[in-house]
Amino acid sequence: MQILVLGGDGYLGWPTALHLSALGHEVAVSDNFARRGYDVEMGVESLVPIATLDERLTAWADISGKTIKSYIGDLCDASFVHAMVRDFHPDTIVHFAEQRAAPYSMISQAHAVYTQTNNVVGNLNVMYAIADVDRDIHLVKLGTMGEYGQPNIDIEEGWLEVEHNGRKDRMLYPKRPGSFYHLSKVHDSHNIEFGCRIWGMRATDLNQGVVYGADTAQTKLDSRLATRFDYDGVFGTVLNRMVIQAVLGHPLTVYGNGSQTRGLINIVDTVECIRIASEFPADRGEFRVFNQMTETLSVREIAETIAEEYPGDCTVEQVENPRVEIYDHYYNVKHRALEDLGLEPTLLSMTLIDHLFEVVERYKDRVDSAAIMPTVRWTETTSELPQTASELPRTASELAQTK
Amino acid sequence: MQILVLGGDGYLGWPTALHLSALGHEVAVSDNFARRGYDVEMGVESLVPIATLDERLTAWADISGKTIKSYIGDLCDASFVHAMVRDFHPDTIVHFAEQRAAPYSMISQAHAVYTQTNNVVGNLNVMYAIADVDRDIHLVKLGTMGEYGQPNIDIEEGWLEVEHNGRKDRMLYPKRPGSFYHLSKVHDSHNIEFGCRIWGMRATDLNQGVVYGADTAQTKLDSRLATRFDYDGVFGTVLNRMVIQAVLGHPLTVYGNGSQTRGLINIVDTVECIRIASEFPADRGEFRVFNQMTETLSVREIAETIAEEYPGDCTVEQVENPRVEIYDHYYNVKHRALEDLGLEPTLLSMTLIDHLFEVVERYKDRVDSAAIMPTVRWTETTSELPQTASELPRTASELAQTK
Repeated sequence: MQILVLGGDGYLGWPTALHLSALGHEVAVSDNFARRGYDVEMGVESLVPIATLDERLTAWADISGKTIKSYIGDLCDASFVHAMVRDFHPDTIVHFAEQRAAPYSMISQAHAVYTQTNNVVGNLNVMYAIADVDRDIHLVKLGTMGEYGQPNIDIEEGWLEVEHNGRKDRMLYPKRPGSFYHLSKVHDSHNIEFGCRIWGMRATDLNQGVVYGADTAQTKLDSRLATRFDYDGVFGTVLNRMVIQAVLGHPLTVYGNGSQTRGLINIVDTVECIRIASEFPADRGEFRVFNQMTETLSVREIAETIAEEYPGDCTVEQVENPRVEIYDHYYNVKHRALEDLGLEPTLLSMTLIDHLFEVVERYKDRVDSAAIMPTVRWTETTSELPQTASELPRTASELAQTK
Repeated sequence: MQILVLGGDGYLGWPTALHLSALGHEVAVSDNFARRGYDVEMGVESLVPIATLDERLTAWADISGKTIKSYIGDLCDASFVHAMVRDFHPDTIVHFAEQRAAPYSMISQAHAVYTQTNNVVGNLNVMYAIADVDRDIHLVKLGTMGEYGQPNIDIEEGWLEVEHNGRKDRMLYPKRPGSFYHLSKVHDSHNIEFGCRIWGMRATDLNQGVVYGADTAQTKLDSRLATRFDYDGVFGTVLNRMVIQAVLGHPLTVYGNGSQTRGLINIVDTVECIRIASEFPADRGEFRVFNQMTETLSVREIAETIAEEYPGDCTVEQVENPRVEIYDHYYNVKHRALEDLGLEPTLLSMTLIDHLFEVVERYKDRVDSAAIMPTVRWTETTSELPQTASELPRTASELAQTK
């Protein structure tokens, strides 16, 4: 089928495009390179060196003989989105193209506003392009398990059967997310569900767990096909970041008491989930939600697993939690839908962790240790907007540190 | 107390500012005159002529001897909001300043994006100003009953006790609203609830029913104190619009079979609800939701009530429903909280309707009949973005009609 991957230059968008292309789908990618821009803004870099999108696409054509078309532009530009969707006319649009770091959204007022505007407007423009061009196009939208927060009841897949005062309804699962970023995805979900109702859109909302892992079958084939690997306190996700700390001889930093629990998924499962969601589309008018994760671990359990497996010395250290979270909470997530459609989970194992140690060992000279620790605190805001240009922070990291 | 009314030049913001000032509160208003701009864009005008904000404030000072301070600016400008909140340092911020018409938000992609961006960003900036300046400031935020949609269970006040698989939680009431405008308020509610959790903000979210009525005790005192009265298919709300149709000898237009049910509230109760919410603030960290409505009527019942009361000939006519709504649905709304705090409801009565007939009779020469019928259809979008300036519609009404 024809699949358009929005955010196709990112950590997951790129391996997804390769996976779908390798399987014989006709794939196009779109990107505005915002993710590379955040690196410049934060003064950090991917641990694994990454080629430009052009070099990546050329390498893939050389190696596989397959062409991936690219559209360079910003989803907040409605004309661009409309023209792209009309030109490529995909069966499926896979939408990864959002600002995806909770700490980034909490740096400042401007970062919160940017995150919500960028994500919500981009997604609305994709919805309008589908409504205008062809309402049969299936939208596969990346959400996050963080949308649910930490409810005291089982987390179902997007919908909840509610019985109240003797009456029943099937309702959207109530959400209470933990950052302005997570909130932006909740806003998207509500907007998309409405699009399904009024325009008969078909949509799959994938509430994804924390992704870990450095490569997939395709990204391993050539260094020019590698995907990014983030370890910094803003964009680095918990497991990847801890592997780096282990290799560098840095204590594994656990935020708070570490009992807060996360849904996890390996990058090789992510790309498979996208294939499955695309090949088995939602019905017309259906707003379908899958919890895209394969196992549940507390932050402390993740740290202990890595510490045990690491061949050298490795300690675990509690640091003040920059976020506002509940500890020792109930967390039971239903995630049957993707497995029922054929996903075979790749659970966290020694082999996978060993492979991550190898990847990090190879590039450890590229690590900026100063970037690892959290700098963005949820409870604090800048007390005063800068009044003159000389008061403006030099980098966003510096801004976060001045709070 | 010191109360800052955002959107203080609007249909409800202005009477609220007067009501609070009359009661001895120290009041300031803020506005960017977006609402007057929509009139220009749509080519319509308030039925009741309205003075400029400056004239209104001068008239109020003349009549009452009380001063209302004004801040002119856009809530999407964070520096403006921050400076205003720091300067006036209110105890309470009453936030009316959002684009508030469902049909307006459904005109086009640009109107949907504008509505969500304007409302969500403005509200985020208010939240950040509170977090930065003084977290003790109470945010009284206007939401809408339309956020809930048409659930098959009782509509509680913002929170729902859920029992599921043998466990319990108190969760945000699941929402399934009916337009991109209503969705923007759902986004706001989620953002504010998060602000209460991480910053200890105190917030009251007022989910208001459809407001009807032309004046309050203060707006009646002088023609320069009058508030706007909208009757057009985009900004006119159902009851006010039908009164105009009756006076003009136009059939009362019911969308679809008219069984869709609305929560209603009289404008004199709205301003009282704001007083009550302000004088009895939410606790620190509390996200409190009140359903601000006093009675429930179906659209058909509203039409029949007006038709019966109108002294002349009056017929009711079904027209195609431009919205996507469920008919003959369950609708049972809990709205005890404001009454428990002292609200004495002014229910729809013959006296109130007669008064509305008088107001409309006085200004009926100002009515543009062409503006009354609905033009914005929920299910349709423009098939193509305009490519050249000559293809651009002259007015937004024209754009809606070309769909």
